[in-house]
Amino acid sequence: MTSQMHPTRWGDPARAAELPEATRELVRLVFPVVDRTVPDDAAVALPEPGLPNEARTDLVAVVGAEHVATDDTSRRLRTRGKSTTDLLRARAGDLSDAPDAVLRPADGDQVQRVLEVAARHRVAVVPFGGGTSVVGGLVARREGYAGVVSLDLGRMKRLLAVDPVSMTATLEPGLRGPEAEALLAGHGLTLGHFPQSFEYATVGGFAATRSSGQASAGYGRFDDLVVGLAVATPVGRVELGRAPASAAGPDLRQLFLGSEGAFGVITAVTVRVRELPEEKVYEGWRWSSFARGCEAMRALAQAQLLPTVLRLSDENETALNLADPASVGGSSSGGCLMVVGFEGRTAAVAARRAEVSTMLADLGGEPGGEKPGSSWAAGRFHAPYLRDSMLDAGVLVETVETATYWSRLRTTYDAVRTALTGALGDPALVLCHVSHVYETGASLYFTVAAPEGDDPLGRWATAKGAAMSAVVVSGATISHHHGVGTDHRQWLGDEVGAVGLSVLRAVKDSVDPGRIMNPGVLVP
Amino acid sequence: MTSQMHPTRWGDPARAAELPEATRELVRLVFPVVDRTVPDDAAVALPEPGLPNEARTDLVAVVGAEHVATDDTSRRLRTRGKSTTDLLRARAGDLSDAPDAVLRPADGDQVQRVLEVAARHRVAVVPFGGGTSVVGGLVARREGYAGVVSLDLGRMKRLLAVDPVSMTATLEPGLRGPEAEALLAGHGLTLGHFPQSFEYATVGGFAATRSSGQASAGYGRFDDLVVGLAVATPVGRVELGRAPASAAGPDLRQLFLGSEGAFGVITAVTVRVRELPEEKVYEGWRWSSFARGCEAMRALAQAQLLPTVLRLSDENETALNLADPASVGGSSSGGCLMVVGFEGRTAAVAARRAEVSTMLADLGGEPGGEKPGSSWAAGRFHAPYLRDSMLDAGVLVETVETATYWSRLRTTYDAVRTALTGALGDPALVLCHVSHVYETGASLYFTVAAPEGDDPLGRWATAKGAAMSAVVVSGATISHHHGVGTDHRQWLGDEVGAVGLSVLRAVKDSVDPGRIMNPGVLVP
Repeated sequence: MTSQMHPTRWGDPARAAELPEATRELVRLVFPVVDRTVPDDAAVALPEPGLPNEARTDLVAVVGAEHVATDDTSRRLRTRGKSTTDLLRARAGDLSDAPDAVLRPADGDQVQRVLEVAARHRVAVVPFGGGTSVVGGLVARREGYAGVVSLDLGRMKRLLAVDPVSMTATLEPGLRGPEAEALLAGHGLTLGHFPQSFEYATVGGFAATRSSGQASAGYGRFDDLVVGLAVATPVGRVELGRAPASAAGPDLRQLFLGSEGAFGVITAVTVRVRELPEEKVYEGWRWSSFARGCEAMRALAQAQLLPTVLRLSDENETALNLADPASVGGSSSGGCLMVVGFEGRTAAVAARRAEVSTMLADLGGEPGGEKPGSSWAAGRFHAPYLRDSMLDAGVLVETVETATYWSRLRTTYDAVRTALTGALGDPALVLCHVSHVYETGASLYFTVAAPEGDDPLGRWATAKGAAMSAVVVSGATISHHHGVGTDHRQWLGDEVGAVGLSVLRAVKDSVDPGRIMNPGVLVP
Repeated sequence: MTSQMHPTRWGDPARAAELPEATRELVRLVFPVVDRTVPDDAAVALPEPGLPNEARTDLVAVVGAEHVATDDTSRRLRTRGKSTTDLLRARAGDLSDAPDAVLRPADGDQVQRVLEVAARHRVAVVPFGGGTSVVGGLVARREGYAGVVSLDLGRMKRLLAVDPVSMTATLEPGLRGPEAEALLAGHGLTLGHFPQSFEYATVGGFAATRSSGQASAGYGRFDDLVVGLAVATPVGRVELGRAPASAAGPDLRQLFLGSEGAFGVITAVTVRVRELPEEKVYEGWRWSSFARGCEAMRALAQAQLLPTVLRLSDENETALNLADPASVGGSSSGGCLMVVGFEGRTAAVAARRAEVSTMLADLGGEPGGEKPGSSWAAGRFHAPYLRDSMLDAGVLVETVETATYWSRLRTTYDAVRTALTGALGDPALVLCHVSHVYETGASLYFTVAAPEGDDPLGRWATAKGAAMSAVVVSGATISHHHGVGTDHRQWLGDEVGAVGLSVLRAVKDSVDPGRIMNPGVLVP
C-alpha cells in the first residue's frame, strides 16, 4: 500500500486492477466507451505556495522545518479528496485547491500549538487524515486567509493506551484502518470498523465524519464505538468521556463527532474494542425482490438478531455483480443478493448463524452458500479502483447515500432512483444496496454510472442536486456516513433547520473565533 | 395516583406506607429516632406572586386565563423538585422558590408563543414535567427577571404518532411513565423505560435529563431510545432526527437531550418502541462479594449477553434489604444480591435466561430463585416513600450516583464511600448498587442514611461536596442519570473542561439570547 494517494486515482497503482472482463463487457454494452488519458501528475501545475514567511517561521518553530513541506508533490497529494468530482477536476488538470504547505505535527501538543500560530496569522487549517473524503471535506475556502495549510496527522500513529478490563483503547488520529487493527491485534483486540475506505482512511477521520463500516450491524457505527475524545481547538483543548454514558448535560462528544475539522482537530480517540474474532464467515442469501429482502433485514433488526455484516443489493446491483463471475460463483438466478456475515467466538457464531438462518429461511430467503459471501469479502474494498477504470473508459461513476426510517425506505428509494435516472437520461445505471440497518430504519447506498458527456462536472452537479432534493423531500437524511463537507452544505439547513444551523455557527464561533478551521466545510 | 406531589413528600399519600417494621427496627438500632412534625402544606407561606400585569395579560392571551394559575396551591405544587434538600427546605417552611405563576399550555404552538412572550417581558421560564428532579433542576435564578413562571406540560399528553413498521412512536412531553406505557400498550407496544421516578416523571423530563431506567440493560437508556425531537426555543423551533443515524454533521439531538430546560422546551419526542413482552421474569443471584458480582456483570456485558434488568447490591445494601423479609424471602445468607430480569417473547426469554444462567453459575453465582426478583419488582418504585418515612424519623436519606469505566469502578466505589462515611461520621449507613452496565463500564448508585443533626442541609452539603470531589478525582462522571440541575453545576467544569463550558454557553446564547430558559440550571 502506498502511503499517499494520487490526486487523480484511488489507492495503490499496483492494485488498480483493470475492470473485470465481464464487467467491462457489460459496460461496453451499455455505454459508449471512450479511452480517457489521465495527465501525468507531475505535469499538472500548482498555484504558487502563498504562505507568508512569518507564518511559516512560526509553524516551523512548532513542528520543525522537515515537517513543513511546500514542495509540489507534498501539496499535490493533499489536494482535495476522492469524490468523482475531485478526481475529474484533477484529471482535467485543476489542482487549484492545493494547500500552500503541508504540516506534519508529531503529537497533540504540536497540533494545539499549530492552531494557535495559525489563528495568529489568519492561516486556514485543513486537517488531513487519509484524504478519502468524498464530500469535499478537504476543500477549504481560501478567500480572506493569509494561506491554507494541510495539517497531515500521518505522524500521529500511536496506540496510546489499552484497557483490557474496560475493553477500550486510545488511538492517535493518524492511524489508518489496517494500522489500527494491527496494533490492536497485538493485544488480541479489534475495532471492527471496516468502511470501504478502510485501507486509507484514518481513526481521526472516522470520528470527524461519523463513519460507518461494513460490519456496523455487529460492531456498531464509529460514533457508537467512541467513548472518549481529545480535541485541540483554537481556544484550547477539550477532553470528553469520563464514563460510557452520562447525564452531565448534553453529550458534547456527539458535537465533535461529525465536526469534520470545522471545530478543531481530534488528537486522540478512545474506542470500545472487542476480542479478535475466532471465526469469520460470510454467506449469500437470495431474495425474490428488494422489498422482500428489506423486510427480512427489518425483521432481523427488530428481533435484535443482527449478524455482524448485513447488506442487500437491489435487482440492478445484483445483476451487475452477477456479470462478474468471481463475485457470485456463477449463480445467476436473478433476484437480490444479501450478504450475511458472522464474526466472533466459534460457538457464538454458530448459535447466531443458526438463529439468523432460520429466520431468513422462514421469511422466504434462499441460502446461497459461502461463495457469494467470501467473494464479497475478497472485493470489499475494491470499488474505488473500479471507479478509476470506469473513469478511464469515459464512464462517470459516483455514489449517493442516505438513511431513513423503515416506513419511508421505499419512498426514498423510488424518489432517488427516479431523480437520478431522470437527470442523467439514457443510458444510465442506478444500482443500490442497503448497507446499514437499525431497529427503526436503514441506509440506502446508490451507485450511478453514466457516460461522462461533454461536461461531466455539470452533468453530475445536476444529477446530484436532483437526488438530494429527492432525499430531502422524502424526509431522509442528507448523509448516512459520508458527511457534509462542502458538497452537502447547502442541504444542511434542510436537515437541522435554521435553529440547528445557528447552533452550529455558535459552537464554531466559540471554539474557533477566527474561523480558521476548515473554513467553508460543514458550517454554511 | 394523585396528579401532583406535595412539596414535602413523594407521591400518593395513600401509598406512603410506614417503614416496614423490620427496617424501622434496624433504623432504631443504628440511629437515634426522632419524630419530626411536617408542617401542613397550607400553613407554609409563599412569597407574593410577582408577575407584572402586562406579562400576565400576554401569557393569558396565549394559553387562556384558566391555564395561568397564581393561586398558592398551584404554585406550591411546582416549587422545587424531590431532592432531600428540596424536601427539607419545604419541611422547614421555606417555599421561597415558588414560581410567580403556573402556565399550562395545550400544545407545542402555545409553548413556542409562551417563550416569545416570556422573552419579551424578561420572564424566566422553568419547564415542569413530573417535578421529580433530584438535582435542583426546577430551582431557577430569580435575580434580574421580571418574574418566574413554571411551564407545566401536564396538558400535553398525546400519543402523536405510531409507526408500527419503523417501531417508533411520537409522544408529547407531559405524559408520565405509566400514561405513556398505557397509550403504547393500546398498540401492543412498550417504551421499556422504568426509572425509579417512573410513576410521576414525564417523557419530556426523561429526554431533558438523559434518564436511565431499571431495565436499561435490555431497552437502553432514554437517550438511546430517542430518534427524533421537536424543541421550542426562544428563537424558534427545531426538529431533529430524519434517520436513526446520520453523518450530517454533529448529532444535535444529543445537544437537546440533557439540556434540562436551559435551551428550550422539548415539545415532542419520537422514540424507538418494542413489542409488549409476552413474559417478564426476575430472579435473584447471590455473590460472595461485590467484586465478584461486578466481574460477572462485566462478563455479561462484554459477551453481549445482557438480560433486560441487571442490578447488584453491595454487602451493605444487601444486608439492609435482608432486614425486610418481604424483599428477599427470608434468605439471609449474606454476600451480595443481584437481580436479573428477562422480558420479551417467551422463547427468547427462555433462551437468553439459559445462556445468562450458565454464565453466572460458571462465574460463581448462586441462583436464588424468583422470590428475590419478584420482591424487587414489587417494591421497585418505593424507595422515595421510604425516604419520607425516614425523614419523619429524623434520619437524613439521600443518594449520590455516578458511572465510570470498569477498570476504575472499584477506585470510585471506595473513594465515594470513604468520602461519605468520613463526612457524616458515626452512625451513617452507606449502601450502593450497580444499576446500569455497559460493555466498557457501569454506574454506581449510593444511598446514604445518617442522623439529621441540628443542621441537616449543611450536613448534607458537606457530605455531598466530599462525595463529588471523590467522584471527580477518581475520574468518574458527575452524574450517570440524575442530571446537572443547580446541585451539580459547580462540577460541570470538571466534567467537560473550560472549552466544554464555553460551548454550552455559546449554544445557550444562540437559542436563548435573553437567557430566560431555566436560568441558573445546567449552564454555570
